[in-house]
Amino acid sequence: MWLTVVPGAPVEDLASALIDIPSVSGDERAIIDQIEAVLRGVPHLEVLRLGNALVARTSLGRAERVIVAGHVDTVPIKDNVPSTRSEDGQWIIGRGSVDMKCGIAVQLALAVELSAPTRDVTWVFYDQEEIEEPRNGLGRIARERPELLEGDFAILGEPTSAVIEGGCNGTLRVDVTVHGKAAHSARAWKGVNAIHGVAHLLVALEAHPPEDIEVDGLTYREGMNAVGIMGGIAGNIIPDVCTVTINYRFSPAWTIDEAKARVERLITTSFEASQAPAGQSVTWKYTDEAAAARPGLDAPMAIAFADAVAATGASAPRAKFGWTDVARFGQLGIPAVNYGPGDPEKAHSDDERCPIDDVRRCHAALRDWLSAPIS
Amino acid sequence: MWLTVVPGAPVEDLASALIDIPSVSGDERAIIDQIEAVLRGVPHLEVLRLGNALVARTSLGRAERVIVAGHVDTVPIKDNVPSTRSEDGQWIIGRGSVDMKCGIAVQLALAVELSAPTRDVTWVFYDQEEIEEPRNGLGRIARERPELLEGDFAILGEPTSAVIEGGCNGTLRVDVTVHGKAAHSARAWKGVNAIHGVAHLLVALEAHPPEDIEVDGLTYREGMNAVGIMGGIAGNIIPDVCTVTINYRFSPAWTIDEAKARVERLITTSFEASQAPAGQSVTWKYTDEAAAARPGLDAPMAIAFADAVAATGASAPRAKFGWTDVARFGQLGIPAVNYGPGDPEKAHSDDERCPIDDVRRCHAALRDWLSAPIS
Repeated sequence: MWLTVVPGAPVEDLASALIDIPSVSGDERAIIDQIEAVLRGVPHLEVLRLGNALVARTSLGRAERVIVAGHVDTVPIKDNVPSTRSEDGQWIIGRGSVDMKCGIAVQLALAVELSAPTRDVTWVFYDQEEIEEPRNGLGRIARERPELLEGDFAILGEPTSAVIEGGCNGTLRVDVTVHGKAAHSARAWKGVNAIHGVAHLLVALEAHPPEDIEVDGLTYREGMNAVGIMGGIAGNIIPDVCTVTINYRFSPAWTIDEAKARVERLITTSFEASQAPAGQSVTWKYTDEAAAARPGLDAPMAIAFADAVAATGASAPRAKFGWTDVARFGQLGIPAVNYGPGDPEKAHSDDERCPIDDVRRCHAALRDWLSAPIS
Repeated sequence: MWLTVVPGAPVEDLASALIDIPSVSGDERAIIDQIEAVLRGVPHLEVLRLGNALVARTSLGRAERVIVAGHVDTVPIKDNVPSTRSEDGQWIIGRGSVDMKCGIAVQLALAVELSAPTRDVTWVFYDQEEIEEPRNGLGRIARERPELLEGDFAILGEPTSAVIEGGCNGTLRVDVTVHGKAAHSARAWKGVNAIHGVAHLLVALEAHPPEDIEVDGLTYREGMNAVGIMGGIAGNIIPDVCTVTINYRFSPAWTIDEAKARVERLITTSFEASQAPAGQSVTWKYTDEAAAARPGLDAPMAIAFADAVAATGASAPRAKFGWTDVARFGQLGIPAVNYGPGDPEKAHSDDERCPIDDVRRCHAALRDWLSAPIS
């Protein structure tokens, strides 16, 4: 059965139909085939397919161009496809409802419905967002066809409960390894215990509060946390290696290098304070890094969009804590915000569910903004 | 080729021959077959086989009976079988040279050579000492045929550099688990980080010095160490579980229960001191326990044996730090000591090697003591 998009039909029904096409990361061919078939039937759009990503554009010669982007993949299904509705009729329930097929429904409906938007629009549907960064479909387009992402402003339909969330925190992961000296545990004093060696680093992390940092009027909450620890090879051996993986979620106040300097300061200070025994040494290695994105809410298009969203009764823009692909637009020099239906804290949960009201409000706000004359 | 034991031949040559029969734990059939064939050819011995263990006894009606025991298995081979000799001719090199085929050579040579020892002797060759405790061959004999281990004194040929090492430390292993609350690391403050939760336990372990405790005139050095740590499931998840494995090597001053109380005091004190956050809890579970053994050097036979060893120029008896099967004899009420060739710190190393002089001295001391009239 092929997906159909009827202009003016309830957008939540399109959301349900999209959820009902499984599209776990790496397995997006079927859903992209369906979306492609819809878009190719729309006369006002030029459609390009790049692997399992689609770029559909209007070319009306408008003064401004906005990019509206969303990923079609989901995390693995947990008996929650096909979708259902809550008894009270207020929720769409199922894998991807929040992250982010309701957002995809909004952008697909509007791509069909808006034959003459007041701003030219580049609609982007991409793959593999939920897995390792090098496979990300938006990143692939940015590398291989950056001209397709040219624009003045970008909206990423990640779940924000239909409120504008500006920018995003960056993220670093660093493996901190303490090296000691192995020994039989019956003669522990002949070794240097690498697990004991991480004690003061963990104390420093435990004592490090989440910091609130204001950037362009929004408050970003940071977090520096051990997310992994591993040490020891046998129950009778003093371990000579222990590795702590630290994840630092940092505000857009800092570049990646500044963020590294901050985490390294915590590391070195903790070891200096701990009077490390002779024979102990510490090394670290970054395993992941992604820049933060500033909110971009001072751009004229962002101000106009914020007004349109405010008109739906949404609360004021706020900071995005998680890292999202808005950072890719930031790196291309394009102001970008997150705006989509659903509570991000319900994303990936077994009970993933999205309020139908969010879907309708996002659809209305984007439609109204893209239909209004540019002031 | 079958093993032969020629009375009076250099005992180190027998040691080399024993090393050259691979016998990694669980794979002792070949070496036990060979030793059994030798022992069955000795008229003064009664030989019993129990699985891959052998008990060979004299029954001369002597006033005293001594048990001389050793395990025939080794840890895995690392390109170090067959055995070699060092260029200077002073070392036997190869897997098991220290732990404990040179000791096995001493006891096998003497089992053949001593047709009329002044004390009745029970020679025990057993399997599976280097692996998990329930498979230990000496433990199996103690459970199934305890009467075979009756005696007044026991000598275990574990490596001691040819010095009597009395008793042994006990050992406990306990998994201490901190339970927190998972959260996405972009909103770390919604979780309770279980890795951070072990910080003060590690500080307490790091600050806990190895204690020297005197028992029956020998000094036992204890050790309480983290030997393993594991926590974290993904690079973007605040971990809800972190487990630290503690190994406590405790002196024979303490029973197992007393040792548990000591390690639990350290655990609970460290968590009380750390002002654990709401939502954090701690549990622990013992995964291994083995009692310590008192030195037993006040037994009359032990005193006589110590005199015989002293006559070889060996240093005074000292405490055994590692746990050994002497503790099994302790539990049977039989005083027992460790006495064998080789430096225990070279056991299990890739360069495992035993001084030939140690082998000869152990052979001579045991032979002389078992040949001397009982005073």
